[in-house]
Amino acid sequence: MRATVLHAPGDIRFEEVPEPKILKPTDAVIRLAASCICGSDLWPWRGLQPVGAPMPMGHEYCGVVVEIGSEVKTVTPGQFVVGSFCLSDNTCPHCRNGFQSSCNQREFMSGAQAPYARVPLADGTLVATPEMPSEDLIPSLLAASDVLGTGWYAADAARVLPGSTVAVVGDGAVGLMGVLAAKQMGAGRIIAMSRHKARQDLALHYGATDIVQARAEAGIAELRALTGGIGADAVLECVGTQEAMQQALRVARPGATVGFVGVPHGVELDGQALFFAQVGLMGGPAPVRRFLPHLMDLVLSRQIDPGRVFDQSLPLADVAEGYRAMDERRAIKTLLRM
Amino acid sequence: MRATVLHAPGDIRFEEVPEPKILKPTDAVIRLAASCICGSDLWPWRGLQPVGAPMPMGHEYCGVVVEIGSEVKTVTPGQFVVGSFCLSDNTCPHCRNGFQSSCNQREFMSGAQAPYARVPLADGTLVATPEMPSEDLIPSLLAASDVLGTGWYAADAARVLPGSTVAVVGDGAVGLMGVLAAKQMGAGRIIAMSRHKARQDLALHYGATDIVQARAEAGIAELRALTGGIGADAVLECVGTQEAMQQALRVARPGATVGFVGVPHGVELDGQALFFAQVGLMGGPAPVRRFLPHLMDLVLSRQIDPGRVFDQSLPLADVAEGYRAMDERRAIKTLLRM
Repeated sequence: MRATVLHAPGDIRFEEVPEPKILKPTDAVIRLAASCICGSDLWPWRGLQPVGAPMPMGHEYCGVVVEIGSEVKTVTPGQFVVGSFCLSDNTCPHCRNGFQSSCNQREFMSGAQAPYARVPLADGTLVATPEMPSEDLIPSLLAASDVLGTGWYAADAARVLPGSTVAVVGDGAVGLMGVLAAKQMGAGRIIAMSRHKARQDLALHYGATDIVQARAEAGIAELRALTGGIGADAVLECVGTQEAMQQALRVARPGATVGFVGVPHGVELDGQALFFAQVGLMGGPAPVRRFLPHLMDLVLSRQIDPGRVFDQSLPLADVAEGYRAMDERRAIKTLLRM
Repeated sequence: MRATVLHAPGDIRFEEVPEPKILKPTDAVIRLAASCICGSDLWPWRGLQPVGAPMPMGHEYCGVVVEIGSEVKTVTPGQFVVGSFCLSDNTCPHCRNGFQSSCNQREFMSGAQAPYARVPLADGTLVATPEMPSEDLIPSLLAASDVLGTGWYAADAARVLPGSTVAVVGDGAVGLMGVLAAKQMGAGRIIAMSRHKARQDLALHYGATDIVQARAEAGIAELRALTGGIGADAVLECVGTQEAMQQALRVARPGATVGFVGVPHGVELDGQALFFAQVGLMGGPAPVRRFLPHLMDLVLSRQIDPGRVFDQSLPLADVAEGYRAMDERRAIKTLLRM
């Protein structure tokens, strides 16, 4: 089969690779219904994260099970499944505590920008739908695999409560899903920081009540003014840069928590500044598996439409163009059709 | 009157100073029942924090109101009061949100290692007892002013819940109060990290179930082994050094929060390490005012005895010896008698 492999920064290829096979009795192999490109895929593509051996790309996936290992019990061939980008056994103490993304057996999914993919730890990772979903729900189910689950975790980690005033730093796909999550959690006010019309429109669609266009100091000042000088009750940091983290910390009110879900690149925190700001931090790779059944229910009952975050759809063979479009911010998030 | 003034690192003097007066209509002046030395007083004394002009020392206090400003309404001369080391109006949005230590009008108390002290923002800061307390309760009421309230906040910020496994880093007075707080909050297991017999004994008295004597890597390994490799549900960081913070982060399980209350000196945090550890942080100067009525009730009804943390008692005039004893760890915490 042909699949997506990163050879070096900027050098993404759609090329012949071996078809995935069951390697362990806990594996499943799925035929993808769709795949997509993640903001985090751009880090190695941009050369901001080392690329060693050629990397099979893609960690967001949903589709139909075609084969299972001998120990797999909860999914069977023919079922439609969604899985988290973090593979987990869902039985270890960290999984049982709701942090499947820190599972003792944690692996990260790879090779999902492809027609078929091997999913290790299938029982602990995959969640099947009750029946074959309608075709138009595929993008939203795919979103649950990472981008929606990650935005949801940002809001969960930031402890969004009914009535909260929430600030969302980052207007990428994860930030937009953070807006959706905050709305579902009952936030009273959701302030999205964005300079881009299309992203602002989507943020408003997902429940943002205010848009702050200004950046850096001016953006911080504008947000603080919007909250009567108090700051936000909960802040979602959905980028991963030092600038975004500092912005998040500075728009948070004392006692607030910054939920940070962008993989930090070059982020350093000064303990004393954090202490006197009296702002909490909670982040990490999202334990999507914790949220997955609920998120899939919300999608299948059409209460949420996270799939709208895909504003570009390309045939899988054109994956390289998808990377370029996302890098140049011509696309918020690119769906790859099979 | 004679009071305590720091002139330079190591140069603490008990010398003649002007008696405090009402300077603003929101001030009160109190006659102290007792005062004490805080671990944080040692930072400038050790030269680890700049000493500019001569500094009037002492921020922990309780005693009898002798005079009030024209706008003070909630306390009257003759009442016994305890106040937080953080002065607050208790009416601003941060105060109403329970973070009085980030009050818009916040000031830090000073000059309380003295027979009399001025307390700004008296209405928002001081809490009166229903009647004159018994003499033997004075040390415990004094503790509520900072050390108990700070240990309590460490446990609150770390989100100790009934049944939690709690690790306490730091066997100073604040750490010991953290043990007491975790016990009061229903922790199932409280692991105190301490190498000193007297401090271990006090930790056990206050509710510690396990003591880890080993330090650094060995201490981390021992604590992790005690928790079946899982780590603690909640960690109290009660020191403020880089080493203590790293130890705290590394004994926390994924999803746990480190409540940090030691003023950080040279603490730097790597965003990516924090992300992948999936450990939360919440700290800052303790909002003692939030807890004060409850803590005073616990003391007055003799449910807790935080005053036992004072293992040295000196006449105020011997304050310099108290600083030396605490610096050399001959004393956990020194009470200053009037």
